[in-house]
Amino acid sequence: MNQDYIKPDNWSLIEEGFDANRVKSSESLFSIGNGAMGQRANFEEHYSGPTFQGSYIAGVYYPDKTRVGWWKNGYPEYFAKVLNAPNWIGINVSINDEQLDLFSCKKVENFKRELNMQEGWLSRCFIATLNNNIQVEVETKRFLSLDIEELGAIEYSIKPLNGNAKVQFQPYLDASITNEDTNWDDKFWDTLKVNHKNHQAFIEAKTMKTDFYTCTFMESKIFINNKETSIESTIKTDSNQISFNYNFEVDKGETYSIQKFGGYVADRNYDKSELASVSKQILEKAKKIGFEGLLLKQKEAWANIWESADINITGDVKAQQGIRFNIFQLNQTYLGKDSRLNIGPKGFTGEKYGGSTYWDTEAYCIPFYMATKDQQVARSLLEYRYNHLEKAIENAKNIGLNNGAALYPMVTMNGEECHNEWEITFEEIHRNGAIAFAIFNYYRYTGDYSYIPEKGLEVLIGIARFWQQRANFSKEKNKYVILGVTGPNEYENNVNNNWYTNYLAQWCINYTIETIEKVDADYHSDFLRIAKKVKLSKTEMALWKAVADNMYFPYSEKHQVFLQQDGFLDKELIPVSKLDKSQRPINQKWSWDKILRSPYIKQADVLQGLYFFEDEFTKDELEKHFDFYEPFTVHESSLSPCVHSIQAAKLGRMEQAYEFYLRTSRLDLDDYNHEVHEGLHITSMAGTWMSIVEGFGGMRVKDNILSFTPKIPEQWDAYSFKVNFRGAIIKVNVCQNETNFELENETALQILVNNELVTIEPNNLVTV
Amino acid sequence: MNQDYIKPDNWSLIEEGFDANRVKSSESLFSIGNGAMGQRANFEEHYSGPTFQGSYIAGVYYPDKTRVGWWKNGYPEYFAKVLNAPNWIGINVSINDEQLDLFSCKKVENFKRELNMQEGWLSRCFIATLNNNIQVEVETKRFLSLDIEELGAIEYSIKPLNGNAKVQFQPYLDASITNEDTNWDDKFWDTLKVNHKNHQAFIEAKTMKTDFYTCTFMESKIFINNKETSIESTIKTDSNQISFNYNFEVDKGETYSIQKFGGYVADRNYDKSELASVSKQILEKAKKIGFEGLLLKQKEAWANIWESADINITGDVKAQQGIRFNIFQLNQTYLGKDSRLNIGPKGFTGEKYGGSTYWDTEAYCIPFYMATKDQQVARSLLEYRYNHLEKAIENAKNIGLNNGAALYPMVTMNGEECHNEWEITFEEIHRNGAIAFAIFNYYRYTGDYSYIPEKGLEVLIGIARFWQQRANFSKEKNKYVILGVTGPNEYENNVNNNWYTNYLAQWCINYTIETIEKVDADYHSDFLRIAKKVKLSKTEMALWKAVADNMYFPYSEKHQVFLQQDGFLDKELIPVSKLDKSQRPINQKWSWDKILRSPYIKQADVLQGLYFFEDEFTKDELEKHFDFYEPFTVHESSLSPCVHSIQAAKLGRMEQAYEFYLRTSRLDLDDYNHEVHEGLHITSMAGTWMSIVEGFGGMRVKDNILSFTPKIPEQWDAYSFKVNFRGAIIKVNVCQNETNFELENETALQILVNNELVTIEPNNLVTV
Repeated sequence: MNQDYIKPDNWSLIEEGFDANRVKSSESLFSIGNGAMGQRANFEEHYSGPTFQGSYIAGVYYPDKTRVGWWKNGYPEYFAKVLNAPNWIGINVSINDEQLDLFSCKKVENFKRELNMQEGWLSRCFIATLNNNIQVEVETKRFLSLDIEELGAIEYSIKPLNGNAKVQFQPYLDASITNEDTNWDDKFWDTLKVNHKNHQAFIEAKTMKTDFYTCTFMESKIFINNKETSIESTIKTDSNQISFNYNFEVDKGETYSIQKFGGYVADRNYDKSELASVSKQILEKAKKIGFEGLLLKQKEAWANIWESADINITGDVKAQQGIRFNIFQLNQTYLGKDSRLNIGPKGFTGEKYGGSTYWDTEAYCIPFYMATKDQQVARSLLEYRYNHLEKAIENAKNIGLNNGAALYPMVTMNGEECHNEWEITFEEIHRNGAIAFAIFNYYRYTGDYSYIPEKGLEVLIGIARFWQQRANFSKEKNKYVILGVTGPNEYENNVNNNWYTNYLAQWCINYTIETIEKVDADYHSDFLRIAKKVKLSKTEMALWKAVADNMYFPYSEKHQVFLQQDGFLDKELIPVSKLDKSQRPINQKWSWDKILRSPYIKQADVLQGLYFFEDEFTKDELEKHFDFYEPFTVHESSLSPCVHSIQAAKLGRMEQAYEFYLRTSRLDLDDYNHEVHEGLHITSMAGTWMSIVEGFGGMRVKDNILSFTPKIPEQWDAYSFKVNFRGAIIKVNVCQNETNFELENETALQILVNNELVTIEPNNLVTV
Repeated sequence: MNQDYIKPDNWSLIEEGFDANRVKSSESLFSIGNGAMGQRANFEEHYSGPTFQGSYIAGVYYPDKTRVGWWKNGYPEYFAKVLNAPNWIGINVSINDEQLDLFSCKKVENFKRELNMQEGWLSRCFIATLNNNIQVEVETKRFLSLDIEELGAIEYSIKPLNGNAKVQFQPYLDASITNEDTNWDDKFWDTLKVNHKNHQAFIEAKTMKTDFYTCTFMESKIFINNKETSIESTIKTDSNQISFNYNFEVDKGETYSIQKFGGYVADRNYDKSELASVSKQILEKAKKIGFEGLLLKQKEAWANIWESADINITGDVKAQQGIRFNIFQLNQTYLGKDSRLNIGPKGFTGEKYGGSTYWDTEAYCIPFYMATKDQQVARSLLEYRYNHLEKAIENAKNIGLNNGAALYPMVTMNGEECHNEWEITFEEIHRNGAIAFAIFNYYRYTGDYSYIPEKGLEVLIGIARFWQQRANFSKEKNKYVILGVTGPNEYENNVNNNWYTNYLAQWCINYTIETIEKVDADYHSDFLRIAKKVKLSKTEMALWKAVADNMYFPYSEKHQVFLQQDGFLDKELIPVSKLDKSQRPINQKWSWDKILRSPYIKQADVLQGLYFFEDEFTKDELEKHFDFYEPFTVHESSLSPCVHSIQAAKLGRMEQAYEFYLRTSRLDLDDYNHEVHEGLHITSMAGTWMSIVEGFGGMRVKDNILSFTPKIPEQWDAYSFKVNFRGAIIKVNVCQNETNFELENETALQILVNNELVTIEPNNLVTV
């Protein structure tokens, strides 16, 4: 934790006072997005200090040639880079010919930045004294429209405070941008056309290699004292840039403002011949609605999102701010409108990790989207994998498997693997299990079985085939083993019989066989179609079954726990609490081999399995595993504390659960891992939501019945959330001594509360 | 194996006929070197076809910034690159204004290339028909002087065959060279000065980052029909090049020749202010001795080397050519004259692998140099490591060890680690064991104990400390274990309890304790000095002893073999012989994870340990291990077949031993691994020598007595070799039905032959 400059507030992130050392961190934290595009909170005006400039268009990426030390056979050819897109937010400002630059000016006072999460906008105000001694007050507001997803809008105002001043606004578009994250300093964009017409400017550019065509556009309006004014502009263009210059002699105390509309149109959604004309139409529409009108729509759209997704916590502002920040960022990243998209681990807030899709989606994000959106959104996320099945089959061929075995990529943009470390790409195969689990989980939660005969079963068969072929029979153990894997705990590489992986493999095969039998019985024509398509036979299924029935699981009689992997007990089992603080985080202090041979767990591994499959274990077993593994867990992955929080809550250890909750919900706000300047941890934010709803609220689905076992941290007065369960909206309000349930539905619903059936009638508060 | 174009010959490599597809392979095979510099067999004249240009100066390297996928804490900052040095061999030739270029000319006939290993020179002759229809006969000869180690000499002759022709020789120096192997396309050389005086040319250049200053120089003489002639030349210089142009109207049938002297002087050996003047002196000396005089000295110098190092095989030309090629290349690479140098895995024949020093030196090369050179050479190689002890201690700190624990680097130029794969750099720690073993082996063979109290003991203590700290106690096993290593078999990564590593660790500690006790008793003042310097205590030694005495060794009761590592028997144990040929070599066909989880062994691992410590095992044990591991060994490392050959010979399996011998001795000549174009496998060539002397000849040292158990492959009539044992030269001649021993010494020597004592008198043939 290295910062506490974000003021506690129920609905906003607020930063007060300007500190150049915080700029990159704030650029991450104050990021804005609308699911179709997003950007870091870079300043509109020129800034000469350390900054990480980033504006991203969903689905537009670059296949950066893989960089490794020594090439190994089967490495993916490229690592898909999240691609910094042309800058449309830029407004250079000069005052009496001196460029406004917060890094180099004489003084910055009253600096305040706010990210209003309730309404979905970012604002900034400050008083700057320039080196020419002119003092100006600046106010800005910016948002990316949820309503028109190609569009963003900025209002930028200047008021000279200590004299008249010649002020120049220079709104511009700039396609000469680079990526922070590049392997070979390649050029990623090729600018095709820079032009303008009637105060509108357009830069058409395409990405190298992937050939995504885009048009970046802008148009501005000028205001004096909030009254629109027509000012002649001069225009400057070069091969990658275009700018308009609006000069005005502003009197002391007068307000000179610019409203800038801009954004991107891409050929992912429009024909590439019409990008400029669509851009023009969007600008016309934006002008017609106007900045205030767009802002009003923005507030309404966010109100809609919050209506179903908000979690309200009373009595703990930091906890409240944390969960809203997580829910806000998830919705800024992915709204479920475009089935080709997915949830990148850094969303639109940074470039690290690349790619857009990890197992995070299935293991962490789907539960959040299932409960807070229409079930079609979760189904879209499942279909995304179905659409990549052929590529997953290709990917499994790369590691020597065949007959339709499917290995989904660890990281992907289009179904192709694009990660480049063998320990992860080739060996972190448990991802395949999470993808199967999500199919099960989707049906369990939504009750919508139709996805399985239509599409899901083919995915399950590919995955079952993978596990059967990837396991091998050990004569020594007289069991099937899975050798050479990396589990969720990436502080182990190339281990044998990772319990989580083996357990998932067994589960996947059993679930696939059970599903095949059900589809055969209840959706026979689908069964016939699929069986023919994938050439399924009883003989093959018997092979799968043999593997599942004879899977090996490392176990310690002494500790009565499953072992994370073979040989785990040979380690020096010193708990994390005994480590000197100077050694933490170990991934920044220790060489990789030292980490690997240590017992320290980066993120829930065995416990991840117990989280997925808790019904298959007794409470005593859950407790023994938690007590064994928690002391070795360093939580150096963002995906770790949420699972531990849920488990701790399940076991009634509310102090621990609360501590993990704070850690997951304020991971970025409080910068636990000293890396928020690189961007936010988007996917783990869904884990934060789970910590409350599944952890404290104890939400589960048991035999088609929604179930709660509500608990509450003693630090809180109350908390409430809503879930969408099979079309019914259930609002749950947990206080220290009671829990209230409300139903937004037309018919009554039976739920389980603390394992007892409770009926809730529409619009009738039930208190337990 | 993809080539058999090298003609079998007892003393030469001969290639007949020109094939552009073979040029890069031949450039490797016909490489020349003199220990101080070396070069690939590039053509002197311009060649526009595929070529790999390389000329290298011993000890002159470049620290290329490490390239990895994801940076891990503790990675070395750089990977030391073997550095292509300015070209001094170049002689552009034009005939009637057409450039002579074997790739683009009309016809090449009677092409013959010869590497004469007996005399140490490279020659080439051919008849070329140019596109202008002029036909010329060309003869060249080149060598790098053993006598003046900065100097090389070339004779290049042209005879027009079908008419008079205007011939131009353009000898040049060129510093605008690049490396084949570079991570970031950095510029490696900075040219400082290009100048000339009195027909001599000099380019002074320094390496970037490492600041090695060098002067590349040349001077030429011109001959008509072998008579020196004075021809005026024109001179051309630019910022990186200088050339002299010698034009002459040559009559049909006349021979026009140039003798070019050139080479390098570096500030490793001379003050950097005098590089040009030293170069001038060398040129003066070369001119005085003359080409023929230098060649005569070259023959004498090589005769001297062969006198002690030759192995003569009768009845099997391919086997003969193989071993001489190996001995020749080893001597071209390292002669033991400069204690700062070592034996790079590709010598002066290519750039792959970088660095100069691997564990190959201790495990493979030292025995060869001990037996074929003065013992000072082996001692120099030991001292090289002593000189790097401080850096090895630093290196161990990088992985969290302390108190003087030393981890020698996997790859180095100056004692610093410069390899960049964690699986190797951090985990292939067995190298430390080979370095300790070499100290033991040096004393065992030479009887020179003085090195140990002077220097060796400090190295041993650093290594013992390393093993004690690197092992950890497993409560589960109630033994010390060594987790997370890579053994010699690099087709396993991050395994636990690699038997070879654990055994070496135990041996190192025991040997160090034994040595400390002996030094304490016999060299007490050295003991006191060292104990004080390294702060040695009985308490600490007790800790070492506890580790050695309680080391864990994975063992299979069923198979009665030590296991390569924990879990080895869980693999699918299908022998290599059952693999489809299309799957080989597996490192070119399989993804890395598939290789890792397979049982296939890249190079001797358990068997490497049994080779080092065969006296500690019964013949039955050796046999069981050979029979268990050989079937899984793919020999995809050059270091593998020699160890298997020695073991097979030891077990009396002569057919197998012979097959492995051919594979090791002709690895490059027959290009078993399809990579000879990248350079030769120099260090494994010492293994080839061991295959004969230790394998077939059965040479060992037992309690200070030299011992032989001679065997001979049925394909051979006889073979003979010499060894230098403690000042006595013993010549061994093994025939099918007897073995003769001869002694070049003043006093008689007792040796063991087939475990029976035999006394050999000076100059008196003993037949057994």
